[in-house]
Amino acid sequence: MPNELLIGLDFGTDSVRALLAASDGTPVAESVCPYPRWSEGKYCDPASNQFRQHPLDYIEGMETVVRAVLKECDPHRVRGIGVDTTGSTPCAVDVLGRPLALDPRFSENPDAMFLLWKDHTALEEAARINETAKNGKGPDYTAYEGGTYSCEWFWSKILYVLKRDRAIRENAHHFLEHCDWIPALLTGVGNRAGRCAAGHKAMWHESWGGLPPEEFFVSVDPLLRGMRGRLYSETYTADIPVGTLTPEWAERLGLSTEVVVAGGAIDCHAGALGAGIEANQMVKVMGTSTCDLIVAPHVNKCIRGICGQVDGSILPGLIGMEAGQAAFGDIYSWFRRLLSYGGNEVSLEQLERDAALLEDSSLTALDWMNGRRTPDADPLLQGAILGIGLGATAPMIYRALVESTAFGARAILERFLEEGLAIQEIKAIGGIARKSPFVMQFCADVLGRTISVVKSEQACALGSAMYAAAASGVYPDLASAVSAMNSGFDAVYLPRKNYDERYRRYRLWGAAAEQLCHSSFSVFPGSGGIG
Amino acid sequence: MPNELLIGLDFGTDSVRALLAASDGTPVAESVCPYPRWSEGKYCDPASNQFRQHPLDYIEGMETVVRAVLKECDPHRVRGIGVDTTGSTPCAVDVLGRPLALDPRFSENPDAMFLLWKDHTALEEAARINETAKNGKGPDYTAYEGGTYSCEWFWSKILYVLKRDRAIRENAHHFLEHCDWIPALLTGVGNRAGRCAAGHKAMWHESWGGLPPEEFFVSVDPLLRGMRGRLYSETYTADIPVGTLTPEWAERLGLSTEVVVAGGAIDCHAGALGAGIEANQMVKVMGTSTCDLIVAPHVNKCIRGICGQVDGSILPGLIGMEAGQAAFGDIYSWFRRLLSYGGNEVSLEQLERDAALLEDSSLTALDWMNGRRTPDADPLLQGAILGIGLGATAPMIYRALVESTAFGARAILERFLEEGLAIQEIKAIGGIARKSPFVMQFCADVLGRTISVVKSEQACALGSAMYAAAASGVYPDLASAVSAMNSGFDAVYLPRKNYDERYRRYRLWGAAAEQLCHSSFSVFPGSGGIG
Repeated sequence: MPNELLIGLDFGTDSVRALLAASDGTPVAESVCPYPRWSEGKYCDPASNQFRQHPLDYIEGMETVVRAVLKECDPHRVRGIGVDTTGSTPCAVDVLGRPLALDPRFSENPDAMFLLWKDHTALEEAARINETAKNGKGPDYTAYEGGTYSCEWFWSKILYVLKRDRAIRENAHHFLEHCDWIPALLTGVGNRAGRCAAGHKAMWHESWGGLPPEEFFVSVDPLLRGMRGRLYSETYTADIPVGTLTPEWAERLGLSTEVVVAGGAIDCHAGALGAGIEANQMVKVMGTSTCDLIVAPHVNKCIRGICGQVDGSILPGLIGMEAGQAAFGDIYSWFRRLLSYGGNEVSLEQLERDAALLEDSSLTALDWMNGRRTPDADPLLQGAILGIGLGATAPMIYRALVESTAFGARAILERFLEEGLAIQEIKAIGGIARKSPFVMQFCADVLGRTISVVKSEQACALGSAMYAAAASGVYPDLASAVSAMNSGFDAVYLPRKNYDERYRRYRLWGAAAEQLCHSSFSVFPGSGGIG
Repeated sequence: MPNELLIGLDFGTDSVRALLAASDGTPVAESVCPYPRWSEGKYCDPASNQFRQHPLDYIEGMETVVRAVLKECDPHRVRGIGVDTTGSTPCAVDVLGRPLALDPRFSENPDAMFLLWKDHTALEEAARINETAKNGKGPDYTAYEGGTYSCEWFWSKILYVLKRDRAIRENAHHFLEHCDWIPALLTGVGNRAGRCAAGHKAMWHESWGGLPPEEFFVSVDPLLRGMRGRLYSETYTADIPVGTLTPEWAERLGLSTEVVVAGGAIDCHAGALGAGIEANQMVKVMGTSTCDLIVAPHVNKCIRGICGQVDGSILPGLIGMEAGQAAFGDIYSWFRRLLSYGGNEVSLEQLERDAALLEDSSLTALDWMNGRRTPDADPLLQGAILGIGLGATAPMIYRALVESTAFGARAILERFLEEGLAIQEIKAIGGIARKSPFVMQFCADVLGRTISVVKSEQACALGSAMYAAAASGVYPDLASAVSAMNSGFDAVYLPRKNYDERYRRYRLWGAAAEQLCHSSFSVFPGSGGIG
């Protein structure tokens, strides 16, 4: 085994994970720590889609997992740390870049904490940003984020907090993404914005010289006046080192001050890297929702209706593109919960087994139970089950639901192809990719593509370790790190069955549902939410 | 208690019931006998929607129940017998009007038995009849049956049997409806066609001189040549006596040969009578499906898209009209079965209780799980559940399903009103009407009408007893019998909540679904079936 070690830190929704990897990618040790306050449901209000995380959850969790993996090795062999986090997950910080919740005055104020990616409190603010972007004098600054700015993203969330909370308004100097704050904290080097979050979540783009201009933000809301100037204009890809560990953090983690910290990235982008993504490939991160990442050598146009298109967000020198479905495995879980109404626990395994025995049914489903993320974000769309006869059974409906999620994936792939991208290979990571051959075969069939499932169960943390390997000089560049450290595949699904006709029906129903949704529904129905 | 007694015989789907009623309507005794062969599943193939009943099931059941109720009284007090049956439920008979299955040569041949109302084997034959009616030289003979002839009805079924079964073709002299055969059997008076089944199921109408002309049937299929001539041209309302008991049947039943047998009627029409229907009222028969009956003083036009419009089918001198939903309670049962997938028994009571606690959700459903019967029969339509979010629960869906069935009822009511009928009162009978205040309140709200639930639990058998009372002269006419014998109400539901906006949404979704169904679906998808 090679002598040099790297740590990939992966801050997920519920826990932080450390992967200690050798420089050939071999996992040496792993540790996971659930966020203690989050586990208790603190600072959240699911009924209003408010999801906040306390910075101490991240700090305490990080110390725990790093110390745990270091027990398995000589700490002096560790050369670098890479960091990925959920996103957009911003937090109000003081002039020194410290989250306000670390100040005793705000330690219990949810608005002083990180607004987790899935927090949907900023619906109005997102609508205002979109309205301004479409009707303003300048270019459409949402263009490289698919043309629809989400309530889940940076500016929506910070405007929400500024509008709602006077204490924050008066004490926040600026805001930091979770993936930027961790490297800043560890190195003492503040305000080194990562390209990934800036480009995908904050409308940063080279063509308009960085963030959109001050006038734009002021016309969105005067409360944003001055914020742009307190943020950043330059951004850095995650293979560039942010710095080395401060003496304090070297001690707290049990590492030397020579350990290099790489730039932070958003978790699914790190996952795409960990999956070994290369030019003209798609990596599907398949779990409760999906994230589809593509890197392409040069894209001389703006791709319609995706989540983002950012030079270097995954691999430097290549355009990283993100799309995804707002609900995927969540839809299967929803149905399982529905069937468990009477008190018995229905399992997805049983549903899969029974659904696999069926021929195609006449049922069709629409997979927009959490709105539609891509193509063409539309938070107001909802799910549907159609073609129900009195003989419709749970496995028939389950099969239609799985099919609908595969159709949703196909709509994304087709959009990329229509826009002229060449997607030559599809790789998959995530819980569904690893656990459900039924769903994966459906996806291969519906997409008409071979899908290879990546061996590593911790592709995100492995990707962060790759960023660390490049940043610390273990490899001369990121491509070499990816090539040396990726895990290969442990399953390959080949397309075997044609679903074109049924996909056509899904699209027809979908078009009708879209039209009806906007002609007759109230603006924010109960269960809608932006993807 | 009055001295004169009447017997109402109600041949249902699963059993025959006798109600012994006093001439003031008071129930004296009741007896039910399940059909023995049917209970064993004999002669049926649910997978191909073949449902047949052996005439011996009817004969044996009838003897059992009549003898049982007579134990409670002096048989000499019985003045008359009325008969209602399911319909259209025809059977091939010999020249003497005997069902072929009573001939030992055909005793095990399902095609020699009664084709139960819900037998859907004659889809192609119905399509052929509709095609000929629309494209022929004469009038549209389906016009008074809503403009769409059903695979459940007389001519579809007899053509199916004639085409399919050579033995029947060579031995059937003609065909009889179940409700015509029983009075013929009991009295020895053959070929006295009841107005109700002839008008609603066999295209009999005064305006074209009875049954459609021979040329029409020959152009449907040459196999029908001569059949019209062997059937009937006159028809009789059910208050007219068919005859008195033959000596054989008087003995078998334990009654005198003076007992009068009234004309037969279809069960829901007898039920409307038993509910005390009067001019400009609607009686809703609410169970697994619904049947909506109206009587109107004079209707000088053809009502679009209902099941039938027949002078005297319920009350002589008034136009009886029938509409209905192909699935009603069946939809609730479908959902209950769906939720019971994991092995636990979910109850409708629990679902109702939980659904009653909810406010309106954003869910919408379409109630066409068994196709649409009226308005505008369309067997290819299917059910749907729309507006599903990840927070959708079983009670929310159940509520949407109940709402959709009420919306289906409203679509029928609105059609009658659009066509100029004045419906001044709505009465309800049937299992749902008696058992589910939740559903009934929904219906009152959605229809915007007061609905009164009839006290009698055996309205069909009571209606037959009313026909018997008129036919045997206990009362001078049917209206007097209805007025004297009806049971009154034991529950009244007043409209309390407005559903206009949500109904509008249901109609919009429905229109889109209809369009899609016919633009993109295959002709006979798995679970469709004519209503």
